Amino acid sequence: MAKNKKLVEAITSMNEDFARWYTDVVKKADLVEYSGVKGCMIIRPYGYALWELIQKELDRRFKETGHENVYMPMFIPESLLQKEKDHVEGFAPEVAWVTHGGEEQLTERLCVRPTSETLFCDHYKDIIQSYRDLPKLYNQWCSVVRWEKTTRPFLRSVEFLWQEGHTAHATAEEAQEETIRMLNVYASFCEEVLAIPVIKGQKTDKEKFAGAHSTYTIESLMHDGKALQSGTSHNFGDGFAQAFGIQYLDKDNQLKHVHQTSWGMSTRIIGAIIMVHGDDSGLVLPPRIAPTQLVIVPVQQQVEGVLDKAYELKEKLSKVCRVKIDDSDKMPGWKFAEHEMRGIPLRLEVGPKDIEKNQVVLVKRHNREKLFVSMDELEAKLPQILEDVQTALYEKALNMRTSKTFTAKTMDEMEEILNKTPGFIKAMWCGDEACENTIKEKMAATSRCIPFEQEQISDKCVCCQKDAKKMVYWGRAY
Amino acid sequence: MAKNKKLVEAITSMNEDFARWYTDVVKKADLVEYSGVKGCMIIRPYGYALWELIQKELDRRFKETGHENVYMPMFIPESLLQKEKDHVEGFAPEVAWVTHGGEEQLTERLCVRPTSETLFCDHYKDIIQSYRDLPKLYNQWCSVVRWEKTTRPFLRSVEFLWQEGHTAHATAEEAQEETIRMLNVYASFCEEVLAIPVIKGQKTDKEKFAGAHSTYTIESLMHDGKALQSGTSHNFGDGFAQAFGIQYLDKDNQLKHVHQTSWGMSTRIIGAIIMVHGDDSGLVLPPRIAPTQLVIVPVQQQVEGVLDKAYELKEKLSKVCRVKIDDSDKMPGWKFAEHEMRGIPLRLEVGPKDIEKNQVVLVKRHNREKLFVSMDELEAKLPQILEDVQTALYEKALNMRTSKTFTAKTMDEMEEILNKTPGFIKAMWCGDEACENTIKEKMAATSRCIPFEQEQISDKCVCCQKDAKKMVYWGRAY
Repeated sequence: MAKNKKLVEAITSMNEDFARWYTDVVKKADLVEYSGVKGCMIIRPYGYALWELIQKELDRRFKETGHENVYMPMFIPESLLQKEKDHVEGFAPEVAWVTHGGEEQLTERLCVRPTSETLFCDHYKDIIQSYRDLPKLYNQWCSVVRWEKTTRPFLRSVEFLWQEGHTAHATAEEAQEETIRMLNVYASFCEEVLAIPVIKGQKTDKEKFAGAHSTYTIESLMHDGKALQSGTSHNFGDGFAQAFGIQYLDKDNQLKHVHQTSWGMSTRIIGAIIMVHGDDSGLVLPPRIAPTQLVIVPVQQQVEGVLDKAYELKEKLSKVCRVKIDDSDKMPGWKFAEHEMRGIPLRLEVGPKDIEKNQVVLVKRHNREKLFVSMDELEAKLPQILEDVQTALYEKALNMRTSKTFTAKTMDEMEEILNKTPGFIKAMWCGDEACENTIKEKMAATSRCIPFEQEQISDKCVCCQKDAKKMVYWGRAY
Repeated sequence: MAKNKKLVEAITSMNEDFARWYTDVVKKADLVEYSGVKGCMIIRPYGYALWELIQKELDRRFKETGHENVYMPMFIPESLLQKEKDHVEGFAPEVAWVTHGGEEQLTERLCVRPTSETLFCDHYKDIIQSYRDLPKLYNQWCSVVRWEKTTRPFLRSVEFLWQEGHTAHATAEEAQEETIRMLNVYASFCEEVLAIPVIKGQKTDKEKFAGAHSTYTIESLMHDGKALQSGTSHNFGDGFAQAFGIQYLDKDNQLKHVHQTSWGMSTRIIGAIIMVHGDDSGLVLPPRIAPTQLVIVPVQQQVEGVLDKAYELKEKLSKVCRVKIDDSDKMPGWKFAEHEMRGIPLRLEVGPKDIEKNQVVLVKRHNREKLFVSMDELEAKLPQILEDVQTALYEKALNMRTSKTFTAKTMDEMEEILNKTPGFIKAMWCGDEACENTIKEKMAATSRCIPFEQEQISDKCVCCQKDAKKMVYWGRAY
């Protein structure tokens, strides 16, 4: 018990210092290790297993919606990066430059891709000729590099893993449909698989992607009341097509520019999983994304028959869930704490008394609820129990977000909320970037999105008190 | 038919110019497109689908043998790369150097990983303390960069995709076992899934990996008689552990260095698939690795009922194989040529007459054999037909290799074979690097491996005629 306590004490409590709690958890749950390369992280087996499950689920959804995977070079020649004006302005300040290959200096610098719009456009220019070649629905899984100075595991790092979808369409309408389709794929993935409720909406012009016509986002709320942009989908219109000369011969024999989209989700979403569901004992993982859904901890494992029964259960349960057994020689209490730290949704305890009663004890990670289940019914009941945990986590997260979502009609109200009970603030906006700038300067909050589901909080802008055009979600953000 | 001919004529014949045949096929089969970045390729959807199937099969085998995936940074600080002397000498001349991040010059150059031994060692040093932490069985899927001057799609490119396994063990014996275990995983993968027979053996000291104690390889033979190193597995001994200080406290309370291995397979293997199985009509894919295993081509599809039947077949067959339908308005002959170019193992033709007879026509890609199969039996028979094709391709490849494998007792014999009928040459070797150098200089052939299965061709070295120690496979290689 002393050891158990020690392990739990090893992480800072959320309320004491949320940022330290976060970095403690990513380290103690074995998700990440710092590397010798500044700002780059090592994703450890447990963290990478999470990413693999995210990839698998997302990739299936991309393929179901007709997308194909490709792989583009990791380097972008400087001249190519510069082809779209807004885009290069947005990214050039934060790219890594390769200047030498072997012993020789390159005639043109190459940047390590911060994102691959320019490479996809250069390729589309070559492979799109006719309306028959459209749409092109491509996606890429890769790593990208942005030279960030202040970094945190998953949330902001010099290199991170992601997917980037890049599509080309015949018409503006099709591109807009695709943009929203993929935003909805992200939203349903977050809600159904990660148990993270999201707000869907459009970014303001100030916050949109460099080179985009319009940017859509899903925004989630972390336990500390800060928002996290969890996935974005951009409609490029024909801006990139104009810059790169991507044209097709339409049925009417006219040369026309394609309309494009791009959309991305990254390892950053692992940060959201941690900060939405985690607690003072560590990680809490929704069953659908948990690399291990159930861990078997034998109790009094030295007693004859206990380990045999535990292995037998493992064998049986591996047919219905992702299961592991901890037969190490550590004390059960220590094991409990370790597996709680790693957020495994269910713990199964089985000891001599349980075997006598032909039952096991199941303990839910998120609320420590105990269930006594007959061994005969276990295999049949487990899938539903895991689903119940999944649903409970979603509802818990939704309640948390609801309790941290406020409305403000004035700047004073907004400031009071941000200082006392940080969270999402719904407030009206006149549409003027000046008001966004004022809010950012005065209280370090930004417009998160103009949500699709609009409400009428008041009829005046929260900042300038002129006529309001839209309701906006505001907040401090990662 | 004129169009059909045109498409086939679009690729050079193998015998006319094998190198051009190869580049024609990779382009016309839509595997690869050249990019604007010198030496870097774009892997197109069809090529990437192949890689995804390779990944899936290999990854399953790695996990079954207890390995876990991780992700390391793509950058290596210059000082870290330099820690192991042989290793840096081997790789420094061919790495890309990042010198600037954003606007600022870096205080230390970073290379883009050409391979990640140094990063794994740096990490192992931090996470390995006790014998309880061993073995560490890690693998990474990523892209790597080597600044090659002469490049060819898949075979040699500045950037390529691969996996690199890196393991750490308590003893030299365990490391050696792991090295051979993973070589065997590669060999069985090549033979069972890719239908490529391989020679397993050890590299000579001259040909081994920079920093390795010993390197093992699987070597396959291409249609033009050149060899291709298809996968390698290295035993590092404790050389890297000494250089990086990776030590563990053993049960006997002594600090000991770990013993390490690494092993890799890359997109290069796609080049082997092309050059082992392909023919003058394009790609030929073994069913187990074919993204599409069967393509349905409706004949006289304008006749009522034909397309409906084709869709019905597609629906039914998608339960037993990876199936596509080509209902485009192209002529059947043109479609046949296109799908042959893409190497789809089976073509299913169905037209009005077939429907009348309640049958379909199946055509095998590799030998154009026609099978008439009753629609009622199709679903049940298809898996076996695909397996038959798989077996036939393996046997065909094995026969090809056998017919191109020779023995030589003298340099004259070797030279004659290489000039007239290139292929593998089995010849004896004294063990002296000078003889390897002589053979390389005189006939541009290298030692491919010292095979596990030794034969006694003669008792004298093919080069110096001194006493022979080993039989070696020699050949010109990609």
